[in-house]
Amino acid sequence: MLKDSNRQGIVISVDSMGGDNAPIEIIKGVAIFLKKNLDARVILNGDKQVLEKLCGENKIFDRYEINHCPEAVAMDAKPSTAMRKKDTSMWATIEKLKTNTADAAISAGNTGALMAISNLQLRTMEGIHRPAIAALWPNPRGTHSVVLDVGANVDSDPDQLVEFAIMGEAYAKALFGIEKPTIGLLNVGSEDVKGHDDIREAMRLLREHGNTLGMDVYGFVEGTDISNGTTDVVVTDGFTGNIALKSAEGAAKLFANVLRQSLKSGPFAILGTLIASAGFNKFKSKMDPRSSNGGLMLGLNGLVVKSHGSTDAKGFAYALQVAYKMARSDYRNTIRDNVKRLIEIKQATK
Amino acid sequence: MLKDSNRQGIVISVDSMGGDNAPIEIIKGVAIFLKKNLDARVILNGDKQVLEKLCGENKIFDRYEINHCPEAVAMDAKPSTAMRKKDTSMWATIEKLKTNTADAAISAGNTGALMAISNLQLRTMEGIHRPAIAALWPNPRGTHSVVLDVGANVDSDPDQLVEFAIMGEAYAKALFGIEKPTIGLLNVGSEDVKGHDDIREAMRLLREHGNTLGMDVYGFVEGTDISNGTTDVVVTDGFTGNIALKSAEGAAKLFANVLRQSLKSGPFAILGTLIASAGFNKFKSKMDPRSSNGGLMLGLNGLVVKSHGSTDAKGFAYALQVAYKMARSDYRNTIRDNVKRLIEIKQATK
Repeated sequence: MLKDSNRQGIVISVDSMGGDNAPIEIIKGVAIFLKKNLDARVILNGDKQVLEKLCGENKIFDRYEINHCPEAVAMDAKPSTAMRKKDTSMWATIEKLKTNTADAAISAGNTGALMAISNLQLRTMEGIHRPAIAALWPNPRGTHSVVLDVGANVDSDPDQLVEFAIMGEAYAKALFGIEKPTIGLLNVGSEDVKGHDDIREAMRLLREHGNTLGMDVYGFVEGTDISNGTTDVVVTDGFTGNIALKSAEGAAKLFANVLRQSLKSGPFAILGTLIASAGFNKFKSKMDPRSSNGGLMLGLNGLVVKSHGSTDAKGFAYALQVAYKMARSDYRNTIRDNVKRLIEIKQATK
Repeated sequence: MLKDSNRQGIVISVDSMGGDNAPIEIIKGVAIFLKKNLDARVILNGDKQVLEKLCGENKIFDRYEINHCPEAVAMDAKPSTAMRKKDTSMWATIEKLKTNTADAAISAGNTGALMAISNLQLRTMEGIHRPAIAALWPNPRGTHSVVLDVGANVDSDPDQLVEFAIMGEAYAKALFGIEKPTIGLLNVGSEDVKGHDDIREAMRLLREHGNTLGMDVYGFVEGTDISNGTTDVVVTDGFTGNIALKSAEGAAKLFANVLRQSLKSGPFAILGTLIASAGFNKFKSKMDPRSSNGGLMLGLNGLVVKSHGSTDAKGFAYALQVAYKMARSDYRNTIRDNVKRLIEIKQATK
């Protein structure tokens, strides 16, 4: 039994029934993760009988606990319906965070439901108007940029975008150890005159407050700048961010499919591909979408990671690693301090 | 001398000084285009001396005319400044359309300036609130989807999105010969409840009016659906569309760069790549970004094509081909008829 006092190491509460490939790939992912992180433990929320069997099959013998939950949130459930059911694995996963039994929570389930349930149980941090989901976006430096919001909100005003910048900065600092992450605001052009009133007002506020808070505000960035890694953090509203992320995912998938087909188009293509397999493996490992798995829900009183719904064991293990790393950091204190200072600045200039 | 009466074939007015690689790649592109389309002629707007020399070098001996313009619009010029200068090659390019000396106009120059100059000289079509730029987006069927708006506007209300749908449908019909193109509205999810109020209102209007106009309204589509070719036309506001397009471009570029580097990472990779070169060539030709070149400015009283600023001769020739094909179509009549009917519907239901 894992205790909520005198806790050592990191405890992660796992929604074992959420996601397209749950619970099989989830438990396999947990096995990979536990093997790598010897001070980590997990609470597996879900069907006890099924999970016990899977743990045995995956040689998970210790550092876990099963919390039986009779129900699971369907991938297409309405958030408003899902948040009223207290017997689901998703509800229990977040509850373990609320009761301080776990340091982090993770789910590959229904994003809207996870957001609603997390919001309801954990509440937003003081001074934060709305939480945001931050995605990891691969860049040419072989690392990732933090992009937020990618879908927690459908619109965001300039004040909220400044809060997203504070949260994204804290995330990049904690996850990548960047001392002073650069921050870009996503727009249709890089010049200050570009875009609509709201985005220009957001830039004005970001420069004004960012300066006082010691943030490195780069300015506007365009869609191409995200994959280019122009800034460590890219701030955008949830509508645009979601569409940017999914448009890029779609383009990458099309690219990969056409490449695969083309390299099967004749005997020389097949032979050459075989000979060049080391090169292809290098490429695959560098561009593996699973290594970008793990969207962090920022602005909540608790650490919640959203895994891609369709990910496999390896991808889920990556997302668990993000949760583990963030649980060892003090990113929420960084956010809390900056938001507090932001409120003080605003009151002083009133 | 090309006459504006009794004109045979198609005449395209070319801004020969616009774009990162102008005028050299522009004239090379014109040469490729003229060779392919024997009933086409061009008006080359720009520096007479430079253009005459380039035409000779590229063996362009007939079916062209040079219209001397002493100035060119800088790539970073402000649209408001550019539209006041009447001695630029861009101004002259559009003027040839206005005076009905040409059937289509094309420029690889400053997008904002081209939009402003086109708007000022040609005016928007009756019943259209704002023009839009439609991009061609590759899909797995080996064809393209039409995505608009990708940057003419920074925001759009639901009524404008319905107009974009009408214009995008006419474009897809004319360019690809699709009898009844399917139309999607870009959102953060495919269910009807997703997104903000404006996008849901746009869907309501689109379904209502689309039905009466005989349009095939598919519903909401997500970012991944664009590259998936889920619908023939994807409608979005100019802010989101621009960022979606550039985010996907950036992702594709990152993908290609990492692939290139990985396949140079060792002797076997290099050898294999060489052997598989036919396969790679197939891939390159299928995913050639130049074949998607040519953004059509819709909603104006004239056919204006915007080429990508950094394109080369081959890409510019593709954009010229779009202009040529559209000049032979009656897409503006289709738009005019549908907009007229839309206005009638609106008045009848008032």
